[in-house]
Amino acid sequence: MYANKKSEFIEVVSNFLEETSLQDKPTGLQLDAFNPESFRKNVEVAISKLEEYLGDTSIRGINLTNPYELLKQAQNIMLGSGEQEKLEAIIDLYLKTGIAVHSPGYMGRQFSGVIPLAGIMDLVNSTINQPSSFYEAAQLPNVAEEIMANELNQFIGWETGTFAMVTTSGGSLGTLTALLAARNNKFPELWSKGFSALEGQGYPAIAVGDGHYSISRAAGILGIGEEQIVRLPLNDKKQICIEKVRPTLEAAEEKGLTVFAIVSSTGTTTMGAFDPIEQLSHIAQEKNIWLHVDGCHGASLLVCDQLRDKVKGIEKADSFVWDTHKTMFMPGVCTLLFYKNKEKSYGAFHQDASYVFEKQPDVYTQFDRAQQNFECTKRPLIMNLWVTWSIYGRELFANKLEYLCQLTQNAYGILEQEKDFQTVHDPEMNILCFRYLPSNLEETALPEFQVMIRNRLKEGGTFFISKVNVDGKACLRVVFMNHKIEIVHFQLLLREIRKIGQEIIQSA
Amino acid sequence: MYANKKSEFIEVVSNFLEETSLQDKPTGLQLDAFNPESFRKNVEVAISKLEEYLGDTSIRGINLTNPYELLKQAQNIMLGSGEQEKLEAIIDLYLKTGIAVHSPGYMGRQFSGVIPLAGIMDLVNSTINQPSSFYEAAQLPNVAEEIMANELNQFIGWETGTFAMVTTSGGSLGTLTALLAARNNKFPELWSKGFSALEGQGYPAIAVGDGHYSISRAAGILGIGEEQIVRLPLNDKKQICIEKVRPTLEAAEEKGLTVFAIVSSTGTTTMGAFDPIEQLSHIAQEKNIWLHVDGCHGASLLVCDQLRDKVKGIEKADSFVWDTHKTMFMPGVCTLLFYKNKEKSYGAFHQDASYVFEKQPDVYTQFDRAQQNFECTKRPLIMNLWVTWSIYGRELFANKLEYLCQLTQNAYGILEQEKDFQTVHDPEMNILCFRYLPSNLEETALPEFQVMIRNRLKEGGTFFISKVNVDGKACLRVVFMNHKIEIVHFQLLLREIRKIGQEIIQSA
Repeated sequence: MYANKKSEFIEVVSNFLEETSLQDKPTGLQLDAFNPESFRKNVEVAISKLEEYLGDTSIRGINLTNPYELLKQAQNIMLGSGEQEKLEAIIDLYLKTGIAVHSPGYMGRQFSGVIPLAGIMDLVNSTINQPSSFYEAAQLPNVAEEIMANELNQFIGWETGTFAMVTTSGGSLGTLTALLAARNNKFPELWSKGFSALEGQGYPAIAVGDGHYSISRAAGILGIGEEQIVRLPLNDKKQICIEKVRPTLEAAEEKGLTVFAIVSSTGTTTMGAFDPIEQLSHIAQEKNIWLHVDGCHGASLLVCDQLRDKVKGIEKADSFVWDTHKTMFMPGVCTLLFYKNKEKSYGAFHQDASYVFEKQPDVYTQFDRAQQNFECTKRPLIMNLWVTWSIYGRELFANKLEYLCQLTQNAYGILEQEKDFQTVHDPEMNILCFRYLPSNLEETALPEFQVMIRNRLKEGGTFFISKVNVDGKACLRVVFMNHKIEIVHFQLLLREIRKIGQEIIQSA
Repeated sequence: MYANKKSEFIEVVSNFLEETSLQDKPTGLQLDAFNPESFRKNVEVAISKLEEYLGDTSIRGINLTNPYELLKQAQNIMLGSGEQEKLEAIIDLYLKTGIAVHSPGYMGRQFSGVIPLAGIMDLVNSTINQPSSFYEAAQLPNVAEEIMANELNQFIGWETGTFAMVTTSGGSLGTLTALLAARNNKFPELWSKGFSALEGQGYPAIAVGDGHYSISRAAGILGIGEEQIVRLPLNDKKQICIEKVRPTLEAAEEKGLTVFAIVSSTGTTTMGAFDPIEQLSHIAQEKNIWLHVDGCHGASLLVCDQLRDKVKGIEKADSFVWDTHKTMFMPGVCTLLFYKNKEKSYGAFHQDASYVFEKQPDVYTQFDRAQQNFECTKRPLIMNLWVTWSIYGRELFANKLEYLCQLTQNAYGILEQEKDFQTVHDPEMNILCFRYLPSNLEETALPEFQVMIRNRLKEGGTFFISKVNVDGKACLRVVFMNHKIEIVHFQLLLREIRKIGQEIIQSA
């Protein structure tokens, strides 16, 4: 066994330097940007700005700026001088123009004010730069993936060693990866021979409920065709209507389609609806179809004792994705892709590349992820979650989620009492859709009324909410992602909506 | 115009709180993890560790650890107590087990010790969490993309407003996106109707030189089939052999393939070879084939006055990708995808999703990127590059790249003088492949000799280099990514290789 002891090597170096008459330590090119003193000065600028930002308790939404004006401001900063001065100006502008994700005025989207420790870990991740598709390049991140897989599996319940968890860069990529595993599982020759391998096998298709746009996108990418997606009918809660699944799948088969995957959701993007996963799993199993669950938003309920029932059956899915940058409050992005069957996780991609893949896995390379994830260079995505989990435990996530879901129920209760508001669903998680429909509104005269309210709210800068179409009608949409929001903020929001709505009606 | 003045709103809030007899400021749930004081304490832990790390000038490669031992160490930390104590233990372990990317002993891969300011920006990016596929969620990042596109286009030379630059999460995703744009451009119905739309149109195929494994992967994903890839023959420099391109494409056509894209490289992964882009562009244009350039490693030479000629012709490609996390020394990942024709950049994906896509673009939504990039939630990838570029200018990148390329030439010069080493190419950039072939080596007896040397070097912990197959033979591969490396370090590496090699021969 070769053992290169440190002391021995230092001797070699110093002898070598003497021999080559390079008495001074070699230093390479001098570049001030890499100076540790610059690092300290610059990071101090960033920290004091962020500290102030995190301490700001004001009610703010977004400071929407004309992009051309912002362009000029940014270009002006570039013309300035002084390293710290420029950095300070940039961070000021960045903070000022960003959505105030840590403020109770932000109720708009599915990304959150992050757990600050997770942001700090990204400073470490980015400074020491360890891409994590290969164990040797990112030893601790790969081990942390193993740990987090087992930590989270406590709430899923698969047998140790039989399942797989893969981290990837976003829910869209997670779903694409899972659908590839499903496609290649059903049509093993497709990967290498292309679609010509399909002759006589029926046409590959996927069946989807109220899916995120990335699912149609995946169908377009994979060559299935967006128009070939089999749409599973929804019930009035906008969940997949379980009674209609079998007949819909059978009608598709009759048309010559081979449905290889059903894509369901726990927490749809539109309004946070939860499909009946358990019942879907029975149909999928019976028909030998891969069941994939888009749990990007809702899989986090797994960690909540009070709410875990909402995702019952997820352990029967073949795969599911979970965006920790949504309801685990991580920075964008860290998606977890789970497979019930570990072996199937190797089916998404097949290739050979001598410079990366070892032919015979050893103790190190068996921890490599490159065969399971799309990326070659992948951020050590897991670190933010693992460190946060290690230090604060499950409770932080569970407490926050339980609070947000209760808040959403309370907000729904208020809306139900208000005659000029219409709810469109009983919210299942932390997304709430509704309309402002005062008695003096003539909807035909103001078809864009809800959207106009939303846009003026946004421009006002105090509240930031979103909009969504439900049954072809625009609705206001609130996503509660911040535990600093109290019901009083929602009441204030309703007051603002009324004020703006009445102004719009008056001036129509 | 609705104007919600801040002072007016504060009055509304305070009246409202009085009415509802909530005299105290509402604060929501209390979670210590979100406390600004915890932020300060935790970030101080991270900074002092990183400062020390960046100041370390020792010659180190990697401290390769058995994953099961590392797992135990990580689990032990989880059992500890004290927020800062645990964080400190985690960061220590993370730094200790990471490849020493800032050390002159690291000569192994295409990721680098980052420019520290870029790491600092990731602290800001992750804390304020602004996903950048939509302008309203990330105003400054979207404007910064516009600025960087124009800054970098100074070295490409397209007419302002006619081209597009899209940021995306890694080179594999960039190439997949470009190939989708190319595929959809040639077969417009494929996106919505799937491969059944192709009947009678010839079978879609791509032609590739010495491509990265992500290109075969893309063929598998898109349903083209890995085996259907048309392999363009290489010359002895491992560039696409331009004389053989036309006959190869014509042979493919005769077999019924419709080659819709040629994928060439400026800086192949294997050994940094540069394909003849300019000449390829003429053939592609003549045959109406999309020319995509994988410039992940080499496109950075655009910013170097001394080296720009290497990528001549890139402005004639339809698209090219550029990984700034490789030779622009950014943290993983920030890939730039350039399109010569702006409109074509909208052809990679097609979909409709009311909750994100505005039907009529306004002054804000015209800056949205979601129709051009794969991701829905995307990190504000550009910020690290833009801020670094704004503060240090082009010169930092150019000086570093010119130094590294010169260093590689010098190292090659040394190898050429050493009889027991064999070079396999005259390096074109900062990747150098060679073999240690001492006269007392019987290659047939030790077919794994080069790989054994590489592995023992790695285990030794002082130098980290990689290996690669060239013409079916394993080679040692050095990638110079660090400006702290001097030629003396390379000489030390050769001394180590000789020592290890002789030990292997002795004990065989």
